[in-house]
Amino acid sequence: MSLEKTTRMNYLFDFYQSLLTSKQKSYMSLYYLDDFSLGEIAEEYDVSRQAVYDNIKRTEAMLEQYEEKLLLFKKFQERKEMFTKLKELASGLQEEEKMTALIEALEKLD
Amino acid sequence: MSLEKTTRMNYLFDFYQSLLTSKQKSYMSLYYLDDFSLGEIAEEYDVSRQAVYDNIKRTEAMLEQYEEKLLLFKKFQERKEMFTKLKELASGLQEEEKMTALIEALEKLD
Repeated sequence: MSLEKTTRMNYLFDFYQSLLTSKQKSYMSLYYLDDFSLGEIAEEYDVSRQAVYDNIKRTEAMLEQYEEKLLLFKKFQERKEMFTKLKELASGLQEEEKMTALIEALEKLD
Repeated sequence: MSLEKTTRMNYLFDFYQSLLTSKQKSYMSLYYLDDFSLGEIAEEYDVSRQAVYDNIKRTEAMLEQYEEKLLLFKKFQERKEMFTKLKELASGLQEEEKMTALIEALEKLD
């Protein structure tokens, strides 16, 4: 799998995992965060490799649908760029420390 | 209905309406945004007042469940406070204009 897709799925999973069932969360977490193979997950849960594959594909499609509707990842990326610019602007100014602290608190909300 | 509940529902509807069905969206929009009564909506859609009431109650519960899971409204409020503080800090500084423009662009993303 491409690094780009893995990164995207990691983010989408992060944003929308609260909307998934616990089985979906377990499979996705093992596959994307812990780097288990489909075969290893199948063995762990005593199901077929195909069942794991189908579940993960469906979950990926669901995550993309949520993103299409709510745009949380897209907005996160846009905010991230603006936070960087804000920190650049604050740099060297009298209020730099307080501003940076606030901007970092904002970033943590994402 | 309390003003507080109406305001909250307006916000939750704004954040999560893309996850609702078109019927849910129509009823909620007429009831909360256009201030129609249950009876008027029932007449408009040729259904019983009870059907409209049940649909709206279920939708309100769904919106609260989405908020419990995704916290978009809560985070929006927290960000809003921080944007206000940032603007106060930026006030009078050399880079005030650029900063305010960036902060306002950030606010529009919410």
